Amino acid sequence: MSIEAVDFFYLSMPVVEDIGDGSQDALVVRVVADGVEGWGECEASPLVSIANLVCPMSHSACRSPLDAVLGHSIDSPADIHTINRRVREIGLDIAQTGHTLSGIDIALWDLLGRRQSRPVYELLGYPRAYPKRPYASQLFGDNPQQTLEKGRAMRQAGFTAVKFGWGPFGRDLTADRDHLAAAREGVGPDIELLIDAGTVWVDDVSLAAQRIEHLQAIRAGWLEEPFVGTAIHAYGELAARRSTVPLAGGEGAGHPDLARQLIDFGGIKVVQIDTGRIGGITPAKTIADYARAKKIRYVNHTFTTHLALAASIAPYAGLSEFDLCEYPVEASELASHLTLERLSPDPNGLVQLPAAPGLGLTPNPATLKKFLKNVEIRVDGNIIYSTPNI
Amino acid sequence: MSIEAVDFFYLSMPVVEDIGDGSQDALVVRVVADGVEGWGECEASPLVSIANLVCPMSHSACRSPLDAVLGHSIDSPADIHTINRRVREIGLDIAQTGHTLSGIDIALWDLLGRRQSRPVYELLGYPRAYPKRPYASQLFGDNPQQTLEKGRAMRQAGFTAVKFGWGPFGRDLTADRDHLAAAREGVGPDIELLIDAGTVWVDDVSLAAQRIEHLQAIRAGWLEEPFVGTAIHAYGELAARRSTVPLAGGEGAGHPDLARQLIDFGGIKVVQIDTGRIGGITPAKTIADYARAKKIRYVNHTFTTHLALAASIAPYAGLSEFDLCEYPVEASELASHLTLERLSPDPNGLVQLPAAPGLGLTPNPATLKKFLKNVEIRVDGNIIYSTPNI
Repeated sequence: MSIEAVDFFYLSMPVVEDIGDGSQDALVVRVVADGVEGWGECEASPLVSIANLVCPMSHSACRSPLDAVLGHSIDSPADIHTINRRVREIGLDIAQTGHTLSGIDIALWDLLGRRQSRPVYELLGYPRAYPKRPYASQLFGDNPQQTLEKGRAMRQAGFTAVKFGWGPFGRDLTADRDHLAAAREGVGPDIELLIDAGTVWVDDVSLAAQRIEHLQAIRAGWLEEPFVGTAIHAYGELAARRSTVPLAGGEGAGHPDLARQLIDFGGIKVVQIDTGRIGGITPAKTIADYARAKKIRYVNHTFTTHLALAASIAPYAGLSEFDLCEYPVEASELASHLTLERLSPDPNGLVQLPAAPGLGLTPNPATLKKFLKNVEIRVDGNIIYSTPNI
Repeated sequence: MSIEAVDFFYLSMPVVEDIGDGSQDALVVRVVADGVEGWGECEASPLVSIANLVCPMSHSACRSPLDAVLGHSIDSPADIHTINRRVREIGLDIAQTGHTLSGIDIALWDLLGRRQSRPVYELLGYPRAYPKRPYASQLFGDNPQQTLEKGRAMRQAGFTAVKFGWGPFGRDLTADRDHLAAAREGVGPDIELLIDAGTVWVDDVSLAAQRIEHLQAIRAGWLEEPFVGTAIHAYGELAARRSTVPLAGGEGAGHPDLARQLIDFGGIKVVQIDTGRIGGITPAKTIADYARAKKIRYVNHTFTTHLALAASIAPYAGLSEFDLCEYPVEASELASHLTLERLSPDPNGLVQLPAAPGLGLTPNPATLKKFLKNVEIRVDGNIIYSTPNI
């Protein structure tokens, strides 16, 4: 069968606030081949990736992903690998390519699984999907007391690992110390406590280093994104100080090479891949294998929907040594209700991918319709994109 | 004064061919402050960066560059540095940000120079602009005889350095050997002969290594882009073989960190920066300074217009040790006629930046009008972009 359609849907909450919550909008992807649908999601600025989908050719290495997707056969995982490689080749000079490709790649895996009545993790070569231990992923409170209460709530909800990130963190050393102590007090002594600096120090190693003793004091399980994802040298310098707090990063990687460099030259001990950015499930699996070879930890990055969550767990579903998964607990209404199914923790508190065909989750048409933005792009009067029918 | 307007213009040849010629379209940027105009150019997929310019906010780190530009003061170079930093911060999660920022940054330097009646190189701290020795940059011929003739033509045109790239190169070892020999025969024994593989081997070190002896045989001045710009490990492995042919790369860098990694970990000896991609003149200057500190060679990457050429020379205009500049000789009609002025080689065959205010080149309104594409983007019925008036 060959790919007949690639449709992008821009969803948004009615009001988008200037806060670090990435679940306020979404870019949902539908691919169709031989009457079968597959669904995916880009973790991207929706309008920018829609433009990337329909952009006219600039030259042979500056072309839309569509030119490598439409009409291509989709009968086996090898087809998806070929498409992924080809999209990179013809999209080399479009910086947005990785983000745009991601949702398409995810949807293609979902479609192939549905067509073959097999879960995606099986198509990736995994005999089974191991349950993952979810860590609750949330923003710091506005003040230490709120942080404490948020930590307590997550412990009471049964999580064995909790992450705090972004918000006020990173700007004032004393406040940071208080937030960190509050976080530990809130979750109690036994829970794995993870800290996300949200790139706040950009590439300033000294600002990050000032926090290390406080992170050690609360036995932080990792320090995530002290720097922007491109600042490999800063990661490397901080890692060379050999604190007991492992560095984590990689969510910003829009290409597997960037994640690899954070491992090889940045000294991270936890690589966090967002399948919605890196180019989809295909390169995420490459990095999961690489992490295994390098004996570092792999974990998904997901802050939004359960479709994104399933897509981000699939690449390492069959690798039992990577036991943790990020689990969004503060997603917007849009993100929380995107799919008909949810990946809720089981009675043991673990998250299990469904054994259903594909990724096993389907967008709820009512949610799509409720939050859909109607976009139209014209060039010289010709409509080259308009929001497709659901 | 504060920035009142940022306008993007999408220009295109009537027919865009599926070839490696990046001059077939253009994205021209105009900024306005206090009645003064500045001009720049993004080396980007025009529609994708237009969408980036007007995209609605997704969250606090996924916002349009406009939010950091409009209304900002533009009275000194420090303002441009602040804007550049802020655009990166709010655009962190939009992969296209660097490409989009580039044209804005260039236009802001031009505007500031025009306003202060000083050339951009002076604003960058250079007392003077040293003339650069242009290398003719062109594609390989379709066959070795064509390559030979193209080489001969460039020698007769007076160039002392000539580069061949892309086209058929890299796919067949014997054909490559013949093209290389033809190139040397065409330009004669004394001309600096540079070879551009155009990322053809992606990240395959062995394919690149097979060509080294042939490159040495023709005394190639460098081997450019054997791999894609993200494949730092492949660059590093090839560099470790210590051939007499220096590696060159960096044009794909959409962020200065990526260029830095090619230097630090990729072992390149020539860093080639496209100011239209890396985020503009501001980060290009950072890399020129870094190259100097690391004692490697800096050279511009420019294959399109003379506005792009001037913007790409400015960051190293005052560094006399970096004597070479890429000089497009096969640009499209659109690119060749974009500006009223041209940077033609002087009687000594050298290229000199004008001492005029700003970058010293102004787009020709007739060319803008002739090649303009009319774009309109609507979200929920509201027009958020339409091609501005020239």
